[in-house]
Order: sequence, then C-alpha cells, then structure tokens
Amino acid sequence: MLFLNKHTISKIGRNIIQTAVEDAYKLVLNAGYNMPDRMHVPDKNNTLLLMPCFSKDFFVTKLVTVFPEAPRHDQPAVNGMLVLCDNVCGKPLAIMDGAALTAQRTGAVGGLAVKFLTAQSIKTAGIFGAGVQGLSQARYLLFNRKIKTIYISDLKKESAIKMSQILKAQFNSVEFIVSENPNQLVKNCQVIIAATTSRKPLFKADKNLIKGKTFISIGSFQPDMQEFPDTIIANADNIFVDTMFAVKESGDIAIPIKDNVITEDKIKEFAKILKDRIDPENKTTLFKSVGMALFDLSAASAVYKLALENNLGQKLDF
Amino acid sequence: MLFLNKHTISKIGRNIIQTAVEDAYKLVLNAGYNMPDRMHVPDKNNTLLLMPCFSKDFFVTKLVTVFPEAPRHDQPAVNGMLVLCDNVCGKPLAIMDGAALTAQRTGAVGGLAVKFLTAQSIKTAGIFGAGVQGLSQARYLLFNRKIKTIYISDLKKESAIKMSQILKAQFNSVEFIVSENPNQLVKNCQVIIAATTSRKPLFKADKNLIKGKTFISIGSFQPDMQEFPDTIIANADNIFVDTMFAVKESGDIAIPIKDNVITEDKIKEFAKILKDRIDPENKTTLFKSVGMALFDLSAASAVYKLALENNLGQKLDF
Repeated sequence: MLFLNKHTISKIGRNIIQTAVEDAYKLVLNAGYNMPDRMHVPDKNNTLLLMPCFSKDFFVTKLVTVFPEAPRHDQPAVNGMLVLCDNVCGKPLAIMDGAALTAQRTGAVGGLAVKFLTAQSIKTAGIFGAGVQGLSQARYLLFNRKIKTIYISDLKKESAIKMSQILKAQFNSVEFIVSENPNQLVKNCQVIIAATTSRKPLFKADKNLIKGKTFISIGSFQPDMQEFPDTIIANADNIFVDTMFAVKESGDIAIPIKDNVITEDKIKEFAKILKDRIDPENKTTLFKSVGMALFDLSAASAVYKLALENNLGQKLDF
Repeated sequence: MLFLNKHTISKIGRNIIQTAVEDAYKLVLNAGYNMPDRMHVPDKNNTLLLMPCFSKDFFVTKLVTVFPEAPRHDQPAVNGMLVLCDNVCGKPLAIMDGAALTAQRTGAVGGLAVKFLTAQSIKTAGIFGAGVQGLSQARYLLFNRKIKTIYISDLKKESAIKMSQILKAQFNSVEFIVSENPNQLVKNCQVIIAATTSRKPLFKADKNLIKGKTFISIGSFQPDMQEFPDTIIANADNIFVDTMFAVKESGDIAIPIKDNVITEDKIKEFAKILKDRIDPENKTTLFKSVGMALFDLSAASAVYKLALENNLGQKLDF
C-alpha cells in the first residue's frame, strides 16, 4: 500500500490529471461508474463528507472534514483523505492527501472548460479568489492557453498579491495584475474564472460587458451561494455543468431557475462536448462545476498508476 | 500522521483494548458520543460499509469492504481501514488496519461479557467458530478467567485443530480439545462463545443443558442469522446486548421476538451493568453483540495514544 502526501500529489503533471478528468467525463458518457450521493454527517458545527465512487477496476472513498472553527487554532478549515481500493477484491491500494488531490482535479475541471469552451487565441483572463483553488485554476488555465495577462481579484488584496507573486515565479513571461475593480476585470478579460466562497454575485453586469466571454464558476457549492450575476446565465449561448447535481447544489444555477430567469432544459452536461464540440468563437458561455467523486476516482487511479511506475510516495508496511 | 498496521495492532495489550471498550460503554451511559447509522454502499455483489463515530476529542471513520468473490483470488473477503481524526480541527491523526482493530475490539467486547457475566471460578469454556474472531474471543476469555479446558468446534475440523495449536503455543497450561459434538461441548462448558456465520442454531438445547451457563454470541450480524437456539433466550435470567441495534440487526434477538418467544422489554443494554452489577453465580445469561463504531473509536483513540507514547507505527510525511 502507498501513501501519497500533499507534496507528491502537487507535483504530478497537469497533463496526467487533466487526461484523467477527461477520462472521467468519458465514463459519464458511457455510464461506466457507480457514484452514490455524497453523505453529509453533521457533528456539532462541523461536517464530515463521505464521497464514494466505483469504476470497473478501482473505487475511492474521499473523506472531507469541514471544521469552520479550525482556523482559530491555526489549522485549515477543510481536511481531506482519500482511500483508493481495487474493485475486484476490495484491497486497499493507496491513501492520498485529499486536499491536494481535490485542488489538482478541480484545476483540471476548470482547465477542460478552458480547453473546450474558449477560443485558442485568447490572451486575457481574470480570476476571482486567490485561495488554493484559484491558484490551481490559474495553473490549469496556463496549461491550456497562451495567456498574456491575468487579472487577480480577492477580497483580501494581500492574498491576490501573494498569488500573483507565486505565479510570476512559475510563469515569468505572463503579466499578473492585482485588480480591485471587479467590473474592470470582467471588461478586460476574455475568460473569467471564479473560485470564491461568495454568497452574492461578484460584479454587476449588463449584456455588453459579458458578450462573447467565457465564465467558469468553481465556487458556489451550496444553493445559497452565487458567484456570477443572472445576466450571464440569461444571455449565455451555452450553459454547461460538470454534473447535473449542480442544478440543485449551486446557487449559480438553482437561483436563476427558481427566479424563472432560465429553464432547466437549457442546462447541458459538459461530458456531451466530448462528442459534440462547440465553436467557442464570439460565444457567451457559462460553465458551472460542483465537483463529484468520479473526478477523484479517475484522478486517484491515474496518480496511483504513475506512482507505481515512478516509485513515488511512501510504501506502507500493510 | 501515523500508520498502524495489522502486526502492530495485534500486539497491543489486551488490557489497553478492553479498558478502551469499557470506556466506550461509559460513553453510552452518559451519551458522550455521536454515532450516525452505518452506511451500506452496494456495488455489484460487493458492499462498502462506512462507519463514522464522534466523541469529544476524536472521531473515526471505519471503511469495511465485503467482497464475497475475493477468496477466489486468494484475497480476504473482508478488508478494513480506519481513519482517526481529532475532533477539534478535523485533522487526520492516524490510519489503522481496520480488520486487526476490529478483531481486537470484538475480542474485548466478548472479554467484558466474560468479566461481568460469568463467575470468577469458571474453569471450562467452549468456542464455536475457529476464525479470526474465534481466536480473539479465546484470547480475551483467557485474559479474564483462569480457564483449565477450552473446547473448540468448527465446521472445518482442520480450522479447529489449527486454532487449538496456535492457542496452545501461547497458553501452554490450558487444555484445548477439538469438539465434533456441539451438544457435548455445551454440556461440558460453563461459558459458551459463538463467533460463526451460521444461519441456523449451532445446537439443540433443552432447559437442563443450558441452565446456569453464560452464552455469548458474536456472529449473527444479520436478521436471518442465528447462533443459539431459542431455548436460551426463553429461559435466560438475563439478556444483554452491546447496543439496542442488535434487536433489529441480529437473528439471535430478532427471530425469537418475531416468534413471540420473548418480548423486547426483557433485553437490556450491557452498559447498564457498569452501574448495576449482577451476581452471575448459577444464572443463565445471554449476551449478544453486533458491534458498533463507538468501540472502534474508543479502541483507536487508545491505540493512538499508546503509539505516540511508545513510538509505535510508521510515521507518514503528511
């Protein structure tokens, strides 16, 4: 059995993870998986999420803990652990840092949206949210497109500055600009990615501001959270979700449906794009992700195979 | 973070584990825990069980996989993994071999039944089932009582012989007898422990055969499984269960209730014995265990503390 920590998982190539997430979408197309609803286990103010998923060869259980008070003790609010087993005998194969794997696969979910929903030629991008997910989104964005300028916005300006410095050290030829004006950011950028915990739309928009742009929402994982204004979903040429659960789980879809801004039949599963590509040129597009254990399963399987081939991780004396 | 494998957990002293399980019963008395129902996740013919439990300081999630076809590939049908976290910040503390911990804590559940429900003076014992659990029951029995002779019965005589040899090597002064006559075994013994997967009672009994003896049922974890004949529950002076879930989960309780052999109000929670001891002398007693995640939590917490103090296990570079 193997243990793969944060450091090892963070260093796995983005090509490996993005291919794995694309493979997950292929499993969606041919229904080659079994993913029960995630389980929410409450205890005091905390939550334990249990996310199992099975494919033909493997299965995972991701455990995520959400402890809102942990930052008071200088600990992260969210921890995660993932157990990968073979799905022939149920034998445990690997234990992985769940937070690091989640950051990687969520970056790749955004990366695939960039790959299939933006023009090859785009040069400008904006990112709302300078946390772990925002950073991962930036890296996968740059893996997929030759962006010249990235605008970064965060409620805490220091966080945006820090993220721009980290990225500058890694991507020297890209210009990083800390933005304090959300509307200016949207105006300047061809693709806008939000990875925040915002409960209200991050900017106000009229039709002209958003036209021809691609909007990717990674935050808003609850029905009362919304990152983008209704104008976008109301005027988008295409609306995609990573899983149809997004319709009930995220306010970015649930709120405009409830308010009769759009109807549910306009929402398409992103996996379908693998069969029926769209021409993203001059199109207004919205992509909303809430994530699913299938991404973890596919990414963890790929990481495990790579670890075996390259002798990565710590061997556990099982 | 620590990894504690089968070998390390099997060597933990029985005093440590039995005290931990007794502590779990104390938590039952003062309602000092939160244990959601275990979750059954089916996939093909296999089952994943997720068993979370929270106390003030710690929480565990035990993952158990049941793959009935695995023995065809020379793999065990049941695998387990336990994740221990702190319950203040949700931080993962240790990963433990779930099967080894389950065997230890289940042994201790039987051990405590022996401690509180049999006379100090007993000298003879019988064990049905020579698997992992039967072996652990024998060890905890001998931890609690100075038994002179143990009768061992199993459908596979070789298994009973092997178990008697393993135990003889460890407990040289005890006599081990392989029994092929279940009724003779019951007749000869003062305490009878069953740890089998039997669906039908293991022996036929009249009132005289069972009088004054203690019966401990560890198997029969489903409503259609039964280890002991109804005569015992019908004539017992005391009937205890480790958790009231046993009433619906085990056929040893559910079947006689359904058949109006007894009424549910005769069933008592074992934890109460910590406050109100009984005099087991000349009493006919039935104890039925189905186990619960609270035992895992309490045992895993104790093992973790001991591991820290004694530098046990493998350190994970988290």
